[in-house]
Amino acid sequence: MSSTPAAPHGIHEHQAKAPGYAGRKSDHLHRLGKIEGQIRGISRMVTDDRYCIDVLTQITAASRALQEVALGLLDDEVRGCVADAARTDPAQAEDKYTELNDTLRRALRL
Amino acid sequence: MSSTPAAPHGIHEHQAKAPGYAGRKSDHLHRLGKIEGQIRGISRMVTDDRYCIDVLTQITAASRALQEVALGLLDDEVRGCVADAARTDPAQAEDKYTELNDTLRRALRL
Amino acid sequence: MSSTPAAPHGIHEHQAKAPGYAGRKSDHLHRLGKIEGQIRGISRMVTDDRYCIDVLTQITAASRALQEVALGLLDDEVRGCVADAARTDPAQAEDKYTELNDTLRRALRL
Amino acid sequence: MSSTPAAPHGIHEHQAKAPGYAGRKSDHLHRLGKIEGQIRGISRMVTDDRYCIDVLTQITAASRALQEVALGLLDDEVRGCVADAARTDPAQAEDKYTELNDTLRRALRL
Repeated sequence: MSSTPAAPHGIHEHQAKAPGYAGRKSDHLHRLGKIEGQIRGISRMVTDDRYCIDVLTQITAASRALQEVALGLLDDEVRGCVADAARTDPAQAEDKYTELNDTLRRALRL
Repeated sequence: MSSTPAAPHGIHEHQAKAPGYAGRKSDHLHRLGKIEGQIRGISRMVTDDRYCIDVLTQITAASRALQEVALGLLDDEVRGCVADAARTDPAQAEDKYTELNDTLRRALRL
Repeated sequence: MSSTPAAPHGIHEHQAKAPGYAGRKSDHLHRLGKIEGQIRGISRMVTDDRYCIDVLTQITAASRALQEVALGLLDDEVRGCVADAARTDPAQAEDKYTELNDTLRRALRL
Repeated sequence: MSSTPAAPHGIHEHQAKAPGYAGRKSDHLHRLGKIEGQIRGISRMVTDDRYCIDVLTQITAASRALQEVALGLLDDEVRGCVADAARTDPAQAEDKYTELNDTLRRALRL
């Protein structure tokens, strides 16, 4: 895709340092772009009646690539928000730990 | 199956009846189209510096949707190729069972 | 728990050929015995206050071993019950496909 | 397992506050004890030639219970070691983040 008029300016101001993934943002976007291409390729395989097992192999690859992005974001979150809260705000840190745990629970499909 | 003009001519000829997922092809394509949109939405969230945890929640949702397609294809494969081989060709059936098992191994991340 | 006087004779008679995993039964039991030992080892690590990350590494190993048993049983099921039904009883085969699919859904955590 | 003479007293002294899971230790042990029983029950089902699908259902349940313990330990680790390092030792914190990330990578099967 190409559109997505990228977040209006205002947004960046008030959360300028909120996300912990600033440094790796372009890395995440690069990976996500590749995954989008993988999904499109899988659709094409289905359209072309390609062999089930080959389609499944590609789905597993895309799924793994997606988990890699998730892992990168989790790492950003721990190094950024969680560590930050641990250092500066014990009460908020508690919330962060709980939130991280809930997210992991979903990621692990529990 | 209905549309599907895509796919260059030759291809359809020699594997016309190969895939076992003909009946659910449009369902798979519909799901994959939605997933592609989900991935695009996730890229947008990263571009807009959206909160890590919210991005992760969307990744988990896309990942689950992708597994649903995989499950549908596995079902097609079992009902189609595997059952077919079991009925008609014991030697080929052996290959199918092994192939299915290898695919499941990858899907389960072993 | 320790007893389990190993299934009374009668049981083997009436379902003698039901399970498709007869041939690999001892393999499954061997693996399960090892997993039971792994779980016991993990309990001991927790009792001994061993480092979290080391405990987690062992849990991942046990979890993977458990999935290996699941994969073996799925393979038995496909080669046994599913293929059997495909060959001999179209109506029952339908039930088998659906049942296998539901089982995979749970195994994939969907 | 066989060796591991249950941890001599001395061990508890020098790592008395090392693990972050002290408070939930009995909870983890309780869960692990139940899982050990589940595995034993699964062995019994295989011994008794119980239906594949039923055995698989129990394996999925045990596997999920094991992931619950993993999740609890990850939470302990973040609240304990990671947060501790974030507060007191930036250099060690880096190591902790990397270690946690590697552990999650294995847990997510990447």
